[in-house]
Amino acid sequence: MVLGKDESEMAERSNRSLSEDENRMNPDSEAEKKKGGSRSRRGEDESNGLSVERIFEGQAVPSWGRQLTFRAFAVSFMLSIMFAFIVMKLNLTAGIIPSLNVSAGLLGFFFVKTWTKVLDKSGLLQVPFTRQENTVIQTCVVASSGIAFSGGFGSYLFAMSARVAGQSTDPQSAHVFKNPSLAWMIGFLFVVSFLGLFAVVPLRKIMIIDFKLTYPSGTATAHLINSFHTPQGAKLAKKQVKALGKFFSFSFLWGFFQWFYTAGDGCGFTNFPTLGLKAFQNRFYFDFSATYVGVGMICPYIINISVLLGGILSWGLMWPLIETRKGHWYPAGASPTSMRGLQGYKVFIAIAMILGDGLYNFFKVLGRTLSGLYHHLQDREMSHVLPIANGSSPENPQVSYDDQRRTQLFLKDQIPTWFAVAGYVAIAAISTATLPHMFPQLKWYYILVIYLFAPTLGFCNAYGCGLTDWSLASTYGKLAIFVIGAWAGASHGGILAGLAACGVMMNIVSTASDLTQDFKTGYLTLASPRSMFVSQVIGTAMGCVISPCVFWLFYKAFKDLGLPGSEYPVPFGIVYRSMAELGVEGFSSLPKHCLMLCYGFFAAAMIINGFRDLVDKKWARFIPLPMAMAIPFYIGPYFAIDMCVGSLILFIWEKINKTKADAFGPAVASGLICGDGIWTLPSSILALAGVNPPICMKFLSRAANKRVDAFLGS
Amino acid sequence: MVLGKDESEMAERSNRSLSEDENRMNPDSEAEKKKGGSRSRRGEDESNGLSVERIFEGQAVPSWGRQLTFRAFAVSFMLSIMFAFIVMKLNLTAGIIPSLNVSAGLLGFFFVKTWTKVLDKSGLLQVPFTRQENTVIQTCVVASSGIAFSGGFGSYLFAMSARVAGQSTDPQSAHVFKNPSLAWMIGFLFVVSFLGLFAVVPLRKIMIIDFKLTYPSGTATAHLINSFHTPQGAKLAKKQVKALGKFFSFSFLWGFFQWFYTAGDGCGFTNFPTLGLKAFQNRFYFDFSATYVGVGMICPYIINISVLLGGILSWGLMWPLIETRKGHWYPAGASPTSMRGLQGYKVFIAIAMILGDGLYNFFKVLGRTLSGLYHHLQDREMSHVLPIANGSSPENPQVSYDDQRRTQLFLKDQIPTWFAVAGYVAIAAISTATLPHMFPQLKWYYILVIYLFAPTLGFCNAYGCGLTDWSLASTYGKLAIFVIGAWAGASHGGILAGLAACGVMMNIVSTASDLTQDFKTGYLTLASPRSMFVSQVIGTAMGCVISPCVFWLFYKAFKDLGLPGSEYPVPFGIVYRSMAELGVEGFSSLPKHCLMLCYGFFAAAMIINGFRDLVDKKWARFIPLPMAMAIPFYIGPYFAIDMCVGSLILFIWEKINKTKADAFGPAVASGLICGDGIWTLPSSILALAGVNPPICMKFLSRAANKRVDAFLGS
Repeated sequence: MVLGKDESEMAERSNRSLSEDENRMNPDSEAEKKKGGSRSRRGEDESNGLSVERIFEGQAVPSWGRQLTFRAFAVSFMLSIMFAFIVMKLNLTAGIIPSLNVSAGLLGFFFVKTWTKVLDKSGLLQVPFTRQENTVIQTCVVASSGIAFSGGFGSYLFAMSARVAGQSTDPQSAHVFKNPSLAWMIGFLFVVSFLGLFAVVPLRKIMIIDFKLTYPSGTATAHLINSFHTPQGAKLAKKQVKALGKFFSFSFLWGFFQWFYTAGDGCGFTNFPTLGLKAFQNRFYFDFSATYVGVGMICPYIINISVLLGGILSWGLMWPLIETRKGHWYPAGASPTSMRGLQGYKVFIAIAMILGDGLYNFFKVLGRTLSGLYHHLQDREMSHVLPIANGSSPENPQVSYDDQRRTQLFLKDQIPTWFAVAGYVAIAAISTATLPHMFPQLKWYYILVIYLFAPTLGFCNAYGCGLTDWSLASTYGKLAIFVIGAWAGASHGGILAGLAACGVMMNIVSTASDLTQDFKTGYLTLASPRSMFVSQVIGTAMGCVISPCVFWLFYKAFKDLGLPGSEYPVPFGIVYRSMAELGVEGFSSLPKHCLMLCYGFFAAAMIINGFRDLVDKKWARFIPLPMAMAIPFYIGPYFAIDMCVGSLILFIWEKINKTKADAFGPAVASGLICGDGIWTLPSSILALAGVNPPICMKFLSRAANKRVDAFLGS
Repeated sequence: MVLGKDESEMAERSNRSLSEDENRMNPDSEAEKKKGGSRSRRGEDESNGLSVERIFEGQAVPSWGRQLTFRAFAVSFMLSIMFAFIVMKLNLTAGIIPSLNVSAGLLGFFFVKTWTKVLDKSGLLQVPFTRQENTVIQTCVVASSGIAFSGGFGSYLFAMSARVAGQSTDPQSAHVFKNPSLAWMIGFLFVVSFLGLFAVVPLRKIMIIDFKLTYPSGTATAHLINSFHTPQGAKLAKKQVKALGKFFSFSFLWGFFQWFYTAGDGCGFTNFPTLGLKAFQNRFYFDFSATYVGVGMICPYIINISVLLGGILSWGLMWPLIETRKGHWYPAGASPTSMRGLQGYKVFIAIAMILGDGLYNFFKVLGRTLSGLYHHLQDREMSHVLPIANGSSPENPQVSYDDQRRTQLFLKDQIPTWFAVAGYVAIAAISTATLPHMFPQLKWYYILVIYLFAPTLGFCNAYGCGLTDWSLASTYGKLAIFVIGAWAGASHGGILAGLAACGVMMNIVSTASDLTQDFKTGYLTLASPRSMFVSQVIGTAMGCVISPCVFWLFYKAFKDLGLPGSEYPVPFGIVYRSMAELGVEGFSSLPKHCLMLCYGFFAAAMIINGFRDLVDKKWARFIPLPMAMAIPFYIGPYFAIDMCVGSLILFIWEKINKTKADAFGPAVASGLICGDGIWTLPSSILALAGVNPPICMKFLSRAANKRVDAFLGS
């Protein structure tokens, strides 16, 4: 559900593939399927007469107020911090964020279960741990760590900084920047992050009950939570937590071990020329990152292959070829980080592919949304004639026990529409008043226009997500960059205005779809819509404080954050900045032939997507995804190799023992990602405290080594 | 059997522990026990009425001439080359050589089985593969690769070289050297290696049939071979070969991978400061050697622990303490490789412990041998009264079917005593005439004296080995160094005379016990003593050519072979040289307080051994072995860490799945050792061809790295 979408271009894509191709599952529902079989079968067999809610019949559903326990928010707070670190690390390295739902679900269950067990033994336990409470935790954690993505620390927000501005094509725009600072970041997030929640609240019944949208990720999460609360499910979950814990420790210790050998630039395992020095210069190497090996284990095979293909195409073929034109196509003296040199080709061709893919899918999802909406509304009108219990879906005239019970509880606790409207208007007013103070370039009327359109766009995104599991938040954000940027114009600091508008738009649109997903999860676990709403509000508030603080820690601890080739290159920072410049200044600043190449790749992205939709599903799953291919264009294919190693491990594991790989693969992958992610906490604290690693593991060519030995010997 | 003993101080010890402590098995019989259980039970249950030979009753035993097939020797030749590389690598690195019987047995079986299968399918197979043929291969391979150890390439022979002489305490003796050359090494081995065979041939019936000596290693090997030729045994063996092959490939590829990063001195994984730079300076690090991890998996736990303890005691405690006395105890200006400096303490204290342990056990085994002999002879006299079939052992009046059949076949093919005596005298004469030409310092009368005593010592060793599974070959060699060295005296080049005498003695004594072990194996697999003898002669001849060639390849390929701190430090080279100097020149050349420390450690080695024998067996197995403790004194504890890692892996594996660990542990360990060992073949060829690795993985302290970065940047 929430954490599976819209954190990145990639996650969007991985989810989308679910709807397009039934053979290829998105990570969540795959994880769901894997969970021992019995559960998912139970979940799916509802229509065959087996009922989930019959199993839970004996358990009373607590009132919405009692679902919101203190312990749930305490655990959520802990997990939020942890996931903020993980998501931030992913944001700032390659920008690919896999679905972390399984680990969030597992860990939430594990902590509260342990807590209640301890309390139970000491006789202090008053309220047993219910699925509703578990859903509250999941919702809160995912809302909070969602901010770590939609806050734009790896994209639009960091794109405003002087560090990124300095790398830009246009030396004149280099002075247009706004450096991060804890105060304005927290303020900004608080005024923009809650709007999306209020925008969709009134529409929840239509989307969940009437339209019966699928929300595959939300459904998968609900099945996961339901399963944890059955006896066998709890047993399997315990084993999975153990596997997660084992690989968490391994990954954490591995990160710790690696740290000792990184005394300087270019030192350590992250610079290991695994495939030789020549390949290393073109960023082909395995960098021993447990995180991306884990990411590779979670992402579908085709994504890993696409990323690798993109890497080979760009760093293996195109960049070396373009480099031979040095002095002709671009000035030979251009610094390696200058956008007027080779770097420009890398960034703009990547942008062209991302935009081509994004636009294709924007129109595709929009088309589907509109046609789906049209059919739904037609059906609804027809159903007015029939009794309510029979309402929504004409192909299922007999409403099951599960549906009855779920609908009953979903409708019990209402959130009044006036409350939602009043909330939206109030926050929009505050935000319109305050944002121009933060960004003088962002005039109040830009904001007002955004807020007028936002509820519609939010609904579109929530609806599209329900149909396709694909949140288009970052595409809406990019549209805002171009529209507002062009409106403001270069002379009025259009770059900053565009980026800030992107933030406003992304936050609204992504929280809108997140909350609707959560309503679906709540619907399937009998959690009240009210508790979902409150939990999301609290989670968002937590995220608005935690995420900037975590980013601040990274920013202060790693001095070269955001510079190309460093440990944290923040690839989407420069990509978003360049998009804003494109929108404001047009194509004039691009190096020679770059525009032509961009047109080519823009078209190619569209055509490849078209092919994927046209050809047989059997073949479509072998066609790479342009969005995935674009990511290594800028940062290089090293993380693609990590991900493919992860894929390979999973592939071999599946060959050896499919059942086990299916049951424990996601847990192992989560362990790898979480351990390495959490290691960044002590690592950044060490960096802040000025504790430097003692050793440098350096890789030198034979000739360089000879010189160094002579130098050290003398 | 053969390859389990006398290759090194360590292997001796590991075997000895079998007899001293029944809880602690030697690697072979442990491997034997592990082989699925059914077989070893069958082997042991003979006395309970189950008979091995009944299983094989249907198979005709081929005549001794037909046991010696061409294919057997072809396979032996291949395996001999492979094991020569492995043993040579072990010789030249840390000098610890584990029992490679399991791998020799497995691989021999695998190759001939494959060969016969291919021939069978093509209809060309004329003779089926029998256990006798398998025994012939085993005997031949072990005889051949035994020369790689007893040839002294890692000890006495290399100790004569100028490279070792240059490191000696006494600058005057530095000119007393004889550099290796292919011609004299092959000649030397040919004239000394066959004597031992003829020395014990006449006594085989007494030791095998009459005394019924156990020869645990030989017995274990026989059980292994018998088991391979039963249907289930063949199945398990196939699986084990697969495991061996998998880890062989892994280990080979790992060696290959490591190679790329070793462009200079101090580069690569073998210099990885895994535990930090400070620990690395004191040689505490894990050097990623697959070989010693495998060795650790084969050696008993107490050996690994002893080696580690020795390393901590010496490099962790004593050397740093002695170093603080620099300028007082030894000249501050002494070069780090000079025996007059810290190096002297390292070498001589190690020698003291090795000698203390060796002498203690020499007298212990001698005592046991004499008392055992006395009892056996008494029994034998008594048995003259009883019928022959009842002969040997009074506690087993009913001779089993197995014993009857084995005795019958063992006595069928005789080797006439005149042949053995004639052979011994002829070879002794040739050798007495030729050796003084190779080593002018080794007078013909020294050799004659050695040859007069040799048969007795050979018998003692073969008998002791039969009782305790412990070949004392290198202890006899050390005695020869001191006796002949002192006799020749410093002025007459006593150092070289002592070392050459050591070679003569070691070769005789070790081949004597090897052959007797093989007779035992042959007895238990119904292989003829004649075919055993011929196979050993052929194997020895192969070894006399292969081993010097392999050594020559290492010597030419690795220019720093034998220098302290290099990849191949040849630790026992300097130890043997120093012993020879001690014998010739006395204690005068030792640095200050060194003699006192040596006395202390000599006594300590004796006392610890005494304790091991005195205390309860339950506790004895927790007392470390002084011989094992002495090895890291000179070369440092890094290989001890490798071995402990191997131990740890096996320990965890046993905790998780004991049956599987028992069945496949030795195969996995063999795979690790063999793959890495075989990698030295291409690696030395690359070095000879002048192909240098492209990359240097260097480890620098933060300060040094800063300087290097500044240097490279400028």
